[in-house]
Order: sequence, then C-alpha cells, then structure tokens
Amino acid sequence: MKTSAYAAQKAKETVRPFEIERRQVGERDIGIEIEYCGVCHTDLHFVNNDWDMSEFPVVPGHEIVGRVSEVGKEVSKFVVGDRAAIGVMVESCGECSFCIDGLEQYCAQGFTATYNSPSEDPGGFTYGGYSQRIVAHENFVLRMPDSLDVSATAPLLCAGITTYSPLRHWGVGEGMKVGIVGLGGLGHMGVKFAHALGAHTVMITTSPGKGEDASKLGADEVLVSTDPDAMAKEAGEFDFILNTIPVNHSVDPYLELLKVDATMCVVGAVEPLSQVNAAQLMFGRRRLAGSIIGGIEETQQMLDFCGEKNIVSEVELIRMDEVNEAFERMLKSEVKYRFVIDMSSLA
Amino acid sequence: MKTSAYAAQKAKETVRPFEIERRQVGERDIGIEIEYCGVCHTDLHFVNNDWDMSEFPVVPGHEIVGRVSEVGKEVSKFVVGDRAAIGVMVESCGECSFCIDGLEQYCAQGFTATYNSPSEDPGGFTYGGYSQRIVAHENFVLRMPDSLDVSATAPLLCAGITTYSPLRHWGVGEGMKVGIVGLGGLGHMGVKFAHALGAHTVMITTSPGKGEDASKLGADEVLVSTDPDAMAKEAGEFDFILNTIPVNHSVDPYLELLKVDATMCVVGAVEPLSQVNAAQLMFGRRRLAGSIIGGIEETQQMLDFCGEKNIVSEVELIRMDEVNEAFERMLKSEVKYRFVIDMSSLA
Repeated sequence: MKTSAYAAQKAKETVRPFEIERRQVGERDIGIEIEYCGVCHTDLHFVNNDWDMSEFPVVPGHEIVGRVSEVGKEVSKFVVGDRAAIGVMVESCGECSFCIDGLEQYCAQGFTATYNSPSEDPGGFTYGGYSQRIVAHENFVLRMPDSLDVSATAPLLCAGITTYSPLRHWGVGEGMKVGIVGLGGLGHMGVKFAHALGAHTVMITTSPGKGEDASKLGADEVLVSTDPDAMAKEAGEFDFILNTIPVNHSVDPYLELLKVDATMCVVGAVEPLSQVNAAQLMFGRRRLAGSIIGGIEETQQMLDFCGEKNIVSEVELIRMDEVNEAFERMLKSEVKYRFVIDMSSLA
Repeated sequence: MKTSAYAAQKAKETVRPFEIERRQVGERDIGIEIEYCGVCHTDLHFVNNDWDMSEFPVVPGHEIVGRVSEVGKEVSKFVVGDRAAIGVMVESCGECSFCIDGLEQYCAQGFTATYNSPSEDPGGFTYGGYSQRIVAHENFVLRMPDSLDVSATAPLLCAGITTYSPLRHWGVGEGMKVGIVGLGGLGHMGVKFAHALGAHTVMITTSPGKGEDASKLGADEVLVSTDPDAMAKEAGEFDFILNTIPVNHSVDPYLELLKVDATMCVVGAVEPLSQVNAAQLMFGRRRLAGSIIGGIEETQQMLDFCGEKNIVSEVELIRMDEVNEAFERMLKSEVKYRFVIDMSSLA
C-alpha cells in the first residue's frame, strides 16, 4: 500500500516526489484520503533541519483534512466517507496523568508527532500530510463540522488549536482586554478566537498597515507596537496577551502592557528569547508563559466551536509543486494568512 | 527635631554621618526609635546609584525594628513603648484597586518607598532606617511578635515578606515539591518559609558546600545545579520554584525542573535576564513570574506566622561604621545570611 508524497531530502531545494508506505489499517485505525494540508512554519523548520532533529526523508504536514476511506473493525467513531482531520499528534502513552487529563500534548513519555517521530510504522518514522493518504488511531482523528469550507479548516488543526487552547486556559472572555501580538498564521486565528470569545481584542503589530485587515478579522482595536506613546498609554491595561511572533524578540514592551497578575503566553517563538527584563515581571507580579497546541478533546471542542461560530482560517490554496515558493513567501510574511496545499494536485 | 544618620554621598566610599530632619509626628503618625536595621542588597544598589535613580544624600534601610517613642493623637494601633517595624513602603494612594485589595506594592500611583522616594517630608525625599529615628503613618507600621529575638526580625521586613508573599500567592504547602534557588538573604528565608508551610523543600544551589547549612535551615533536599545528571533526574518534578539569585543569569536550567503548569517566580534579579528559552515555557505550559515584597496586611500575617512558628532570619550584627565592609562582604556572599546594623552604635 504505497502512496505518492513530496518530501524534503536534507534541504528544501531537493524537495521531490517519492513513494512511502503507510501502515495497514489496524483494528482501531482510520485511513484518510487527504484533501487539504496546511503549511505550518514548523514544516519549514523540519525541512531545513533548523532544530537538528529532522530524519530525512521528511514528509511534513500536520494540518490535515480529508475523507475516511477505510476503518478498522473496532472503530466506532467514524464510517467510510466521513470528513475527518488530523493535527499535530497521532499517538501518546495514554496512561500518564496528562494523557488521562486530556493534555496529550504534555504526555510524560512525549507524544508521537504526525511527522518525524520514531514509530513502528513502515520507515521507522511518522510521515505527515504532504501526502495522499494517512493512517492513524481513531483517538487522534477529529470530527469536522459540516458547515465549514473544508480547505479553510485545515489550519485549525495547528494554528487554530495553538491559539484557542491558551485563550481558553487563561479564561479569555467578556470583559477582558486581550492582545494578540503578530498577525500571521497563528495571530489571525488568535484575533478571530479572542473576538468570538467576547474579549475586547487588540491586534498588537509592528505594521500600521495591518490595521485594516485586523479589523476585518475581528480586532476591536489596533495597537502599533513601534509607537512608544501609544504603547505607554496602554501600559498595565491588558488581562492577557497571546504572543504569536515566530522568532526571537524582546518581550519587554509587551510585558509592560499587562495588568498586575496578568499573563503573556508565547506560542510562536520556540527558541531562546534574547531578553526578558525580570523587573517587568516583578513590578506587577506578571507572568510569561508558553503553550503548545492543545489536547485532543480540546481540539475537538475548538472545531465544534468553529462550526458554531463559523470560524475558519484565511487561506491561499496552492498546488503541491508550489510549496517551495510558499515557504519563501511565508518567511517574508507574504501570505494572508496560511497556505493550504490542495492535495488533488499530487495525483 | 534632628537625628544623626549615615548616608551615602554619590558613592559608598564617602559614607559619613550627617544630620537629617524628620517630619513632625502627625495625627496618625508614629515615631519610632530604631533599634535594628537590616542591610538589603537594594541598599547597595541605591548607594552605588546602580539604577540611576538615587537622590543624594541617600539614607538606606528598609528592614527596620524599634520602639514606639511618640504617637499622633488619632493613632489607635500603637502606644508608646510598643515594639514596631517598618518595611519597604511608608505610603501609597490608598484608593486604587490594588491598595484596596491590600496589594500596596502594586499601587497604581506607585508606593512611597521608605527611602529615596519623593515626599513632603523635610528634604523632599524619604530617608530610611540607617538612622536613629523614623516617622511614618500608622497604616505602614507593623506589630512585632513578642516572642522573637528582635535583632533577627529586622530582615523579615524585606527578605522575609519578599519570599513569603510569592510562596503564599502560589499556594505552597503540604504535598508540594518546592525549590528555592540561591542561598542568601532572601533564599535562606525562602527555605525556612517553604519548610514551615509544609512543602518538600529543595535547596537548589551552585555550591555543594551549602548543603549542610541548607539542611539546618529546613531544606529536605539539596540539588546542586551544576550537576547535569542530578538536574536531569529532577526535570519536570517541581510544583513551584522561588528564584532568589540577585543578578542576571540563565533561568533555563531551572525552568526545566518545573512540572506542567508550574511557575518559577523571580524575586532577586531586578534586571534583564539575558536568556530565557521560550521552548522551556512552551513544552509544559510553564510560567516565569516575578514578585516584589508583599502588601501591608500580608506583611503583618507573615510576622504573626513567624511568631507562631518561631522563625527569624540568620543575622550577623554589625556596627554602623562597619557598613561599607558589610557591603563588600555581601557582594562576595560572605554573610550568613543577613547583616543587621545595631543602631545603638550610631549614638
């Protein structure tokens, strides 16, 4: 059972189609014909081996939506033909306190990622969604609301849950002033969710030009972080800030915006921050936190919430053979706001 | 009404005795004859003008204990002869939500510090406890438990409340594993409090030699942070860490010790931390927080708790004219664990 796929071989310049084998559909497995897969910044990190942990060939992609094409005999959640989705995880120990509490993303054994994780699957590593087909345990397969534009739902599986989970964890809702820093794949979902949750939502950006877009996405206000007067005026006013900047930066100007006891949660920059002024934390008992994706149950809640509130990602559909160009444009922030690969282009 | 005092004049080399005037005791004021004053690292920062905000002459000192010598006619809390204490604050707006909630340390207008704060007192700035006498509003004067060795209580007013407050705020108690990083003036109080609150208390130190002392202070365990194997073994095990290191350092090795959703609170380093790995926060939804001192009501609770549990600071008594030498030794961590000036040496 083979399937055609693209993969990065040591560097994205050598991306090429090749054949991989998927595992047989086990008793509780689901086989999915992939329709769309979102392009996440993490994909590029793995393609470029930025974190020195890529196992080539890499098949990236963890924002996967498609149709169930096969179900194992013990599967109860899905039938063939259902729409289904897979996000960042395909397995976890299931026994640790985190897994039991629905926090598989913090599994004590480490979760099995949708790609590049050691696995008993053919090849010895998991292969992701830049592919025609995927097989996974039903516990890690999500139900999709029927009402939404399918191609625009793919990014919900990573960009969506990564922003939704901390907003919910820190209780964002009505009566709160919430900042979203950075308007990219994650940030634009953060704006949509914070708005839908009823918070006074402030887009915090270095680019005044992004104001109009932010308003369309649901921002009640735009704060230009390069304007010191504007920033000073809102110092100490925010109940929560979600920081989606994907690279190292000084968090100090944003910390100053927080109320006493308030939190800024970083979800983008998986790397050392070169400066954090402890005084900003101390004078206000503020907190700098981090968060990754969300648990499976919470991901399902997020998808259901999106169905209810009619929330999808803003996407630009591309063909599989345009992915290198898409990576380049993503690095230059030239995408509004997430590339999604139409997997029929791989046929 | 004059009183003799020592003060730093542009640099600690020129510390010299001089006369300051205290304000008249107002209707709700208390006059205190100072018996002992602790030597805090902050004092040295102001003496050296490290933060470029010292107003010379500086009279440092905010760990003050003494006897009430005069009371205003509306004062209800104290009578002449009572033992009394003053910590880091002598005034706040009293009207903002923080003051109303007993969080004067985060007063929206900024609290008036015991020294070097603009004030209507003679001199235009507040003068601290390296002095024979002080006058303050009764709301900022604390009652001292009778049972404790007076000279050893002075450091409770800053080192004590600075560690007690975050331990209480983050709910430290039985069944929790709590780390105290750094064994100095603050750290040794942190160990005592965490132990008294019933937590499994771990002294985390770069110096294996501090183990024995830490055990005597109440540590159940000593973790040497320069031992990578020992650190790796306890990764993800701590419910809370209180970080008392007074200077810039990498917090990453300590963040790795935290459980999912756990917090490390910085109370020592009032400065930019040169590295904080956001990945350490993200993979575990951990929090890096800060805290300063504590509110007045909480300070009183802390003093009462100390009376109940017989907790005092470990101190080395010095004469006023030994303060420069004490500053030098403090910088070299050659004090166990707090210098306290016997103010009778100023007579």
